[in-house]
Amino acid sequence: MDETTGTLDLWVREIRKNSVSLAFRVEKTLFSGKSPFQQVDIVKTASHGAMLLNDGMIMLSERDEFIYHEMIAHVPLFVHPDPRRVLIIGGGDGGTAREVLKHATVERVVLVEIDRMVVDACRMHIPSVSGAFEDPRLTLLIDDGVRYVKGTDERFDVVLIDSTDPVGPAEPLFDTAFYANVAARLTENGIMITQAESPFYDPEFQAVILSGQRPHFARLHLYNFSNLTYPGGLWSFGFASMGLCPIGDFDPGRVARSGIRTRYHNPRIHRAAFSLPEFVGGNLSGLIDPLPD
Amino acid sequence: MDETTGTLDLWVREIRKNSVSLAFRVEKTLFSGKSPFQQVDIVKTASHGAMLLNDGMIMLSERDEFIYHEMIAHVPLFVHPDPRRVLIIGGGDGGTAREVLKHATVERVVLVEIDRMVVDACRMHIPSVSGAFEDPRLTLLIDDGVRYVKGTDERFDVVLIDSTDPVGPAEPLFDTAFYANVAARLTENGIMITQAESPFYDPEFQAVILSGQRPHFARLHLYNFSNLTYPGGLWSFGFASMGLCPIGDFDPGRVARSGIRTRYHNPRIHRAAFSLPEFVGGNLSGLIDPLPD
Repeated sequence: MDETTGTLDLWVREIRKNSVSLAFRVEKTLFSGKSPFQQVDIVKTASHGAMLLNDGMIMLSERDEFIYHEMIAHVPLFVHPDPRRVLIIGGGDGGTAREVLKHATVERVVLVEIDRMVVDACRMHIPSVSGAFEDPRLTLLIDDGVRYVKGTDERFDVVLIDSTDPVGPAEPLFDTAFYANVAARLTENGIMITQAESPFYDPEFQAVILSGQRPHFARLHLYNFSNLTYPGGLWSFGFASMGLCPIGDFDPGRVARSGIRTRYHNPRIHRAAFSLPEFVGGNLSGLIDPLPD
Repeated sequence: MDETTGTLDLWVREIRKNSVSLAFRVEKTLFSGKSPFQQVDIVKTASHGAMLLNDGMIMLSERDEFIYHEMIAHVPLFVHPDPRRVLIIGGGDGGTAREVLKHATVERVVLVEIDRMVVDACRMHIPSVSGAFEDPRLTLLIDDGVRYVKGTDERFDVVLIDSTDPVGPAEPLFDTAFYANVAARLTENGIMITQAESPFYDPEFQAVILSGQRPHFARLHLYNFSNLTYPGGLWSFGFASMGLCPIGDFDPGRVARSGIRTRYHNPRIHRAAFSLPEFVGGNLSGLIDPLPD
């Protein structure tokens, strides 16, 4: 005799263009709220720990967030000779600040997050990521990053644009006018890092992002890292600077001397990340600068 | 009034340990058959072209297969000073052979595939990958690769183990006895490349694979590439040689001189691929050899 059975089969699923789906089994929902800016959810997955989603898009998982956060922070902070003041736009989960604050030279971090709900939910449910908010060197501002950059007089050695995708609240963070205002807030050796989407799925948009940065920076590069929770695995950051070269001005010995413990970044990975696959580099030739061997 | 609607919603879905799922929308099934060894399916996806699955596991898609096939072939063939004879174990889709045969030095390729159905289905439905079977330098043997390697007297400059995962027909291809037999069939400067699973999801098994190779080879390395269709995106090959170093014995100038057109591999990517994330390299220290800077 046939039998009917029931089971609670919960998955969080990110579907790209109705054609590719990446999903994780969910054990329980830890937080679910709707802010003035977006839907914010934190779920406990079966295999990847807690996971943060904004408007249903996966932002991070506890299992692999170290990769994104190490690569957005340590690449510029090990290139800049003396990073003291760091501005983070977005990054309300705290992971980027956590890595930045590992650098002993850093005296002040300003983190400008538009959505207080992201900060509060992560502090409550993902403390391994949000612990940086306890550091006295960090100033948290709940504000619009675009407005903040336009209005502030402060200057920074490194600015990290730790944004969501260019839909919804983060859209103005991909605008050339914003990049111009960031450049104006950089010190002489300043570096700006931007979340730059997927080299597999968003090559045309990567070119748009970098084109918007090109007029305002002396040097421009793209670098890649692999993670588990973004579509296609491979993901990019833009590296824009007032002159510093991410390879030529990188002293590998400083990594060991810093005593900073990492799980992804190391001197070899630092340099390798700027080595672009042929189909990526070809697409961006003329936009990004050549690198020394 | 509520309405009920119906739609044909076809997806091909690979689920890892009942916790992570990667799925692609299917437009139609091109081939479906059961061989003595495995279930073989080829589907037309909405976004990634034709896709081959063995026992429900994604083997390749037309959209990104170039990455796997370029990286398994060009890395050893550009390190070996004069690759003439190449043995491919598995690789019944033909993609690895296609890349190998781009090298003008290659005089003879022996491809030993256990499952004729894979070869026939790919020749019929994925000609962009299987075209290599028309090349007169290629000899196709439908045979057990383990038995072939044990029985043949022929020696090869490069052996590529283009296998499925270590379950089902490919399981003996991950055995140390098999690696010993491969080593015995290599010429003086010989290189063996092995499909080596995911550094994210299979780190312990990667260590097992490399441990099985270690006694039979003078040099041992791991290198990574990113693709769209394997869980986690980042994937590995093992590089085992009778002495050649994948970095020290690599002449970047040879890539341009060869005239071979690629979409992923290039001299920078070649070297970058051997730069392992901290969590990968740490796990394998003592097993793999150090690399020159």
